[in-house]
Amino acid sequence: MLQRTYPDQNCSIARTLEVIGERWTLLVIRDALFGLTRFDEFRTSLGIATNVLTARLDRLVSEGLLERRAYQIRPERHEYVLTDKGRELAPALLMLMRWGDRHYAAPSGPPRLAVHTGCGGEMGEDFRCRRCAEYVDLPDIEFGQGPGAAP
Amino acid sequence: MLQRTYPDQNCSIARTLEVIGERWTLLVIRDALFGLTRFDEFRTSLGIATNVLTARLDRLVSEGLLERRAYQIRPERHEYVLTDKGRELAPALLMLMRWGDRHYAAPSGPPRLAVHTGCGGEMGEDFRCRRCAEYVDLPDIEFGQGPGAAP
Repeated sequence: MLQRTYPDQNCSIARTLEVIGERWTLLVIRDALFGLTRFDEFRTSLGIATNVLTARLDRLVSEGLLERRAYQIRPERHEYVLTDKGRELAPALLMLMRWGDRHYAAPSGPPRLAVHTGCGGEMGEDFRCRRCAEYVDLPDIEFGQGPGAAP
Repeated sequence: MLQRTYPDQNCSIARTLEVIGERWTLLVIRDALFGLTRFDEFRTSLGIATNVLTARLDRLVSEGLLERRAYQIRPERHEYVLTDKGRELAPALLMLMRWGDRHYAAPSGPPRLAVHTGCGGEMGEDFRCRRCAEYVDLPDIEFGQGPGAAP
């Protein structure tokens, strides 16, 4: 996916970027965390070319972040579902979201909120729920509309 | 920096990627968190072309993630120091590092460890120190060599 690897970079951040360090790829993972599974859903959400999306999805499947599953036989149709490995990127995306909320959100507030499944409390920076004060681990984080969401 | 922005993406992750969603940029921030400040240090660490590095640093300065400071007058020399805004990306990089450690580290272990400044304990996934059990906030996180570091 990247035109260049980092053979002399003995660093887990560099290795991670080799896999997910391309702008669309992280947005595919974001959309998968938000519940999208189908090719057309990703394409509509991201507004990218079909061939680019195909390449990104194939790469994420081959690296084991997404699983490609048939959900219909005739005609054959597939969906893309996050694996545990893919889902484990949620904390990193949550931290990127927090940073963007803090520095680039609209005056109306953040467009999305990370909330504690079931409880509904908003996630704090330390992965504790602001309502029940419990430490919230994956997969008990979900994303809902925030005050700055588009109407 | 990106050839394309996401005007219809009302999302703090997409906005964040507009600023830092380019593979070199996150590695510049990583190196700045590890203590590098000078152009030649970044260039040696990253092995990238001078013009590319100049563009990345300029962009990070104009977005307020780095501050360019003169550290010598004759000849004039500058260093690049993280602002608070730049430093606030540390939790996101820490989460990317954890993910890479888990899925792509060498058998000898992670090349770097995030540790609690002063205490020296390793940071847990929940931002608590594994030695003293305290919640560790920025700027009390620093990075040290891990068991998988290059000799």
